[in-house]
This record gives sequence, C-alpha cells and structure tokens, in this order.
Amino acid sequence: MEMFFVTHNEAKFKEAKQVAEEFNMSINWFNFEYEEIQEQSLEPIANASCLKLVQENPQLKGKVFFLEDAGLFIDSLNGFPGPYSSYVYQTLGNKGILLLMEGEKNRAAQFESIVAFYRDGKIQLHKGVTKGRIIYKKRGDKGFGFDPIFQPFESDLTFAEMSLKTKNLYSHRQKSLRELFNSIIAFAKE
Amino acid sequence: MEMFFVTHNEAKFKEAKQVAEEFNMSINWFNFEYEEIQEQSLEPIANASCLKLVQENPQLKGKVFFLEDAGLFIDSLNGFPGPYSSYVYQTLGNKGILLLMEGEKNRAAQFESIVAFYRDGKIQLHKGVTKGRIIYKKRGDKGFGFDPIFQPFESDLTFAEMSLKTKNLYSHRQKSLRELFNSIIAFAKE
Repeated sequence: MEMFFVTHNEAKFKEAKQVAEEFNMSINWFNFEYEEIQEQSLEPIANASCLKLVQENPQLKGKVFFLEDAGLFIDSLNGFPGPYSSYVYQTLGNKGILLLMEGEKNRAAQFESIVAFYRDGKIQLHKGVTKGRIIYKKRGDKGFGFDPIFQPFESDLTFAEMSLKTKNLYSHRQKSLRELFNSIIAFAKE
Repeated sequence: MEMFFVTHNEAKFKEAKQVAEEFNMSINWFNFEYEEIQEQSLEPIANASCLKLVQENPQLKGKVFFLEDAGLFIDSLNGFPGPYSSYVYQTLGNKGILLLMEGEKNRAAQFESIVAFYRDGKIQLHKGVTKGRIIYKKRGDKGFGFDPIFQPFESDLTFAEMSLKTKNLYSHRQKSLRELFNSIIAFAKE
C-alpha cells in the first residue's frame, strides 16, 4: 500500500520514516503546508485539516495519507502553548517559555501528538502523549522546537539530547504513529 | 438597512454599537461563536471566518453582517500574541505578557482590528491600527483582554482606564468600524 505523510516539517517526516521502518512499512513525503483551525485541543484541528486537505486537493481523494499535529501543554501555564506551539516557538522561542516558568516549581508538561489518517473517505485519529517536565536551562541541539527544554519522566535526557532512535523510544509522536501502524496491520489481517 | 455584528464578545458589541450611533446607524447583536483559522496576520483569518459563516449558516446568506478580529502585536516579541491574543489572554493573562517583557526597553506595540463586512455575496475588509506601548504594571479595570497593559501614544491612560466613549476616540476597533460605516454611507449615496 502506498502511503503519504503530509507535512511541511522534514524533521517530523524523518522521525515517522524510522518508526515506519520498524513495521516494515515505507512512507512517502508529501511536502505541503495546509491550513489549520484555531482550537484549544489538537483532535479537532487535525480532523479539520484532514477533511479540508481532501476537499481542496482532489488529487488526494484516492490516496492513503496521514498528517500529524503536535503541541506542548504546560500545566502551570494552563496548557499554553498547546495547539499554537509552532507559532509560539517562532515568536518567543525556548527563551520565552523559560521566562514564563521562572520561579515556578510545578514544571509538569506533556507533549501530545495526534495523527489523522485518511483512507477510503474516512478519517481515523490516533493519539500519543509523553509526560515530562520543563527543565530550567535548555540542553541539546537535536530535534526541533521545544525539544531542548522538555525532558520525559522516563529519561535523564531532553528530547534535543537524544538521537533520532532514542527519541523514537520516548516521544509522543512515535506513540501515535505506532498506534496508526498497528491499526493498519490489524486492518490488513481482517 | 438591517445589519448584524456576529460576535461572542459582548464588550466588543457595546463598543461597536456606540460608534454606529454616531453615524445614526443601528446594529444588531448576533451572538455566535465561529471557527477561525491559524494565520500570522488578521486579514486572512477574518476573511476565512466570514466565508465559512455564510457557507455553514444558510440563514445568513440574504443578510448584511460583519465580524471583527483583533490582536495585540508586540514588537520585541516578534508580533506575539498577534492573532492568538484571545487564547494567550486566557492562558497567560496580562501577567504573562508583563513577565515576557521584563527588562525589555522596547515597549512598542500595536492593536490591530480587522472588520469583515458581508453584503450581496461579497466580503469587504477594513483595518484599524492603534500604536502605543506596553506599560510596566497594569492599570485600570474597564475594557477587556490586554486593555490594562496597553497605552496608546496619544493618551496618558491605558485602554482599561478609559470610559467606553474615550476608548472609542483611540481604539483600533473604532477605526476599522468608522471605515466600515463611512463606506456604507458612501455606497448608499452612489
């Protein structure tokens, strides 16, 4: 089965490709920037993006594809930056988040990932969550976005200190993707 | 001509009603929460909201209405919170903005307002901008959102220290609305 990952973010595609290989699957990069709606949680955003992609790009109609939306939700900031993580990273950066957390003892945060998978006119959502904490000073230069300030509970490293392979043991994204790939295998066996 | 202001925000409606009265116009409140897209500037957001409102609410098709989208764009924060001002106000509040601006000497910021006006199947956009600065400590309890920390260059008061009438001399919103009402009058005279 030919399958596309619609994303403008090459780092995301590389992460997904590696997870797919563990399942003996191959995915193709469909480099495309699509419109997102404003919502407080990721599920309705990913769902609406997927629907809109199909409506406005007839060439996708017969295809099998998925997109992914992710965000960092910080407890003490009422979930900020959440669905606007990419915009907030571009404007405030890691520096801005650390400034907002100054003197804050509750460092709990979670990265969330929603995959919206499209096949035969239907959309399926898969969610992955990784809980962790916002550290006090950024560490590491791998990954992207808020990776240098997020450390999952199960590791001593931030996402930005991990190799792609290691990040793919802990990340929110590999969780939603594994759920997706498992469901594809289960469907094929039916 | 019967005209509706589609907004979920009562404070916005009150501001608009007062400006309309100066033009001997009356507007009706259509209290409705509509979907917005994610974009870096307000124009495409207001335009898309207006289009979507008509497409999804057939009862609006024959009507004359407008909606308004506004945001606070802070120079030293690369335009943050911009189009996400309402979400950022809910999560971080004025406190969060003041924290991000701590030690920052460049306090320049502007409030922007875009009105999207719908009549006879066409959408018209009007823009209003008010330049000013982010003060160091919030003042005033009138208005809403970031009003207590924004002081327009032409006044010693923050928006939150102004009566509705005074705010309607300085605000970004009265500027876009005056443009709208003037264009309606010009159109009627044609």
